[in-house]
Amino acid sequence: MFTGLSAFPHSPLRDDVVDESAYGVLIERLVAAGVDSITALGSTGAYMYLDRAERRRVATAAVRHAGSIPVMVGIGALRTSQVLRLADDAQEAGASAVLLAPVTYQALGDDEVFGLFEDVTAGLSVPLVVYDNPGTTHVTFSDELYARIAALPNVASIKIPGVPVDPAEAAARVRAIRDRIPTSVGVGVSGDSAAATGLNAGCDVWYSVIGGTLPETALRISRAALSGDHALATAESERLEPLWAVFRAYGSYRVTAAIGEILGLVAPDSLPRPVHGLTREARTLVARLVDDLDLRA
Amino acid sequence: MFTGLSAFPHSPLRDDVVDESAYGVLIERLVAAGVDSITALGSTGAYMYLDRAERRRVATAAVRHAGSIPVMVGIGALRTSQVLRLADDAQEAGASAVLLAPVTYQALGDDEVFGLFEDVTAGLSVPLVVYDNPGTTHVTFSDELYARIAALPNVASIKIPGVPVDPAEAAARVRAIRDRIPTSVGVGVSGDSAAATGLNAGCDVWYSVIGGTLPETALRISRAALSGDHALATAESERLEPLWAVFRAYGSYRVTAAIGEILGLVAPDSLPRPVHGLTREARTLVARLVDDLDLRA
Repeated sequence: MFTGLSAFPHSPLRDDVVDESAYGVLIERLVAAGVDSITALGSTGAYMYLDRAERRRVATAAVRHAGSIPVMVGIGALRTSQVLRLADDAQEAGASAVLLAPVTYQALGDDEVFGLFEDVTAGLSVPLVVYDNPGTTHVTFSDELYARIAALPNVASIKIPGVPVDPAEAAARVRAIRDRIPTSVGVGVSGDSAAATGLNAGCDVWYSVIGGTLPETALRISRAALSGDHALATAESERLEPLWAVFRAYGSYRVTAAIGEILGLVAPDSLPRPVHGLTREARTLVARLVDDLDLRA
Repeated sequence: MFTGLSAFPHSPLRDDVVDESAYGVLIERLVAAGVDSITALGSTGAYMYLDRAERRRVATAAVRHAGSIPVMVGIGALRTSQVLRLADDAQEAGASAVLLAPVTYQALGDDEVFGLFEDVTAGLSVPLVVYDNPGTTHVTFSDELYARIAALPNVASIKIPGVPVDPAEAAARVRAIRDRIPTSVGVGVSGDSAAATGLNAGCDVWYSVIGGTLPETALRISRAALSGDHALATAESERLEPLWAVFRAYGSYRVTAAIGEILGLVAPDSLPRPVHGLTREARTLVARLVDDLDLRA
C-alpha cells in the first residue's frame, strides 16, 4: 500500500457543503486509472476545514467508491483527543491506514510532536503515515525526530516534503533518512514537482496532489520511475514544468481545484472560504495549460 | 470597552475537559481586581483547541461570572462558515464584542483575509477586534490591510502584535497606524513585554496575557501608563523583565498556565495535549519568579 502512486483527491464543497456526488466521481476516476492507493482528507482533501461529521462522511464515501484500492485517511487536528476520535472514525469507516500531520496553533517542540505520535500510534489497528508538511503545519522535522517517530509501533511510511533538485543529492537525502529509520518504514515524496526526482532517488511512493485529479498523468511518472525508466519519469515531469510553475505561483491546492472545475469534475467555488479560488486571469492560464499539456486525465 | 486592560484568561482543562469551576474562579479574580474588560477564548484561552460546544460553555461562563465587566469572545476558526456560527454563539452568550484572528492552514493572501473580515463583520450586532497574531496565524498584516479592514462596519479596535522597543519609534508606529484607520477604531498592544511601551506610545488598550492570571500586576502598568505616569509604567515593566525572559524562552501560554498552577488556581496539566506544560526545571524557575517578583496577584 505504501508504494507507487497515492492519489490525494480534493474534497469539493458546493454552497459550503461537501459535494459527495462530485467526490464519488473523483474517487471512481482514480479507481478507473488504477492508482495504487487513495489518500482521502489530505491537505488537498481540505481535512483541516471540515468538522468531524463531514470528515466521517468523506472517509466513508472514499472507502465505498474505492472498491479494492486501499484508502488512507488524514486524521490531523490541533488537539490530541480530537485526533484520537478521528482515528477511531477513520478505522470505523474502513480506512486501510491513517495519515497524521502535527498541525499547530501554539508552536510545538520536538517532544510535543513526538508525544502526539506516541499517543496516537499506541491505539491504532492500522498503519500510520507520518505527514511532514512544514508549509501548512509550521513544524520542522529533524532526522532525529523522524528516527524517534519511525520507531513507534504502527508507523509505516514518512511523507517527506520534497528532495533536492540534483539527482545525486536527492539519492543521498533519501539514503540519509533510511539510515535513521527501521527498514519496515517506507519513505514517500510529496511536492509534485519533486516527485520524479524523489522516486528516481529511491522513494517508495509519491503522495501526490495532482494524482487526485489527473491520475493518468501522475501514473506515467510513478510507473516509469518505479520500473527503472528514470529518464522517462524525468522527461514527463519536465514536460509538466509549466504546471509546477503555476503550483508555485498560486499553490497546488487552488490550482488543482481549478483543474477539477475546468474539467467539469467539480462545481465552481469548491474551496472552503476564506480560501478563494484562482482569479479569472490565473484560471484562464490554467485552462490553457490543461489543453497545451494534454491534462484531461 | 476598548481601553485600559483587557485580561485574557486561560481556559484550563482537567483530564481533557474544560474545568468550568476553575475558570469561574479565574474570571472572578479579574472582576475583583477591576480589569476594564475580559477577553475569553483568546490564544491564552486556547480557543483553537476547543470545539464549538466547549467554546459556547466557556463564553457563557465568562459572561456569567464577569458581572458588569464587558466580555469579548474569540471566534477564530479556519473556515468562514465556522466563524459565523461561533459569532452567533458568542453573541447569544452575551459577548459585548468579538475577537477575530485570521487563522490559517493553507496560507491566505490579503484579499482572502479581507474577505473573511468582510463576511464576518457584515452580520455582527456587536463590535469586532481585529486580532493580528502572526506567531500563531502566520498571517502578516500590512498597514494597507489594516486600513481596508478598519473601514469595515463594526470594527472597533486592532490588536497589534507589539511595538518597537524605542519609545519614539513606538510612538511613530502607533501614529502611522492611526493615520491609516478611522478615528473610531482603537489600537491595542499585545506582547506583554511591549505593553508599557505600547501604552506610553498611545495605544488605547493592552490585550494582556498576564492580565488574565495576574490582574493586579498588569493593572499597575496599564493604570500608570494611561494616567500619564509613563515612568512608573516603564519601571514596573522593567521590574518584570525576568518574567518576560521566561515568556521568550518557553512561550507566554505555557508560562501563564504554570503560574496559574503554582498559585493553585488551576489543576496540573491544564493545557490541551499535544501542548505540554513546562518541564520541572522551568517550572521551578517560574515558581521562584512568582516569589521573587511578588506575583501573587
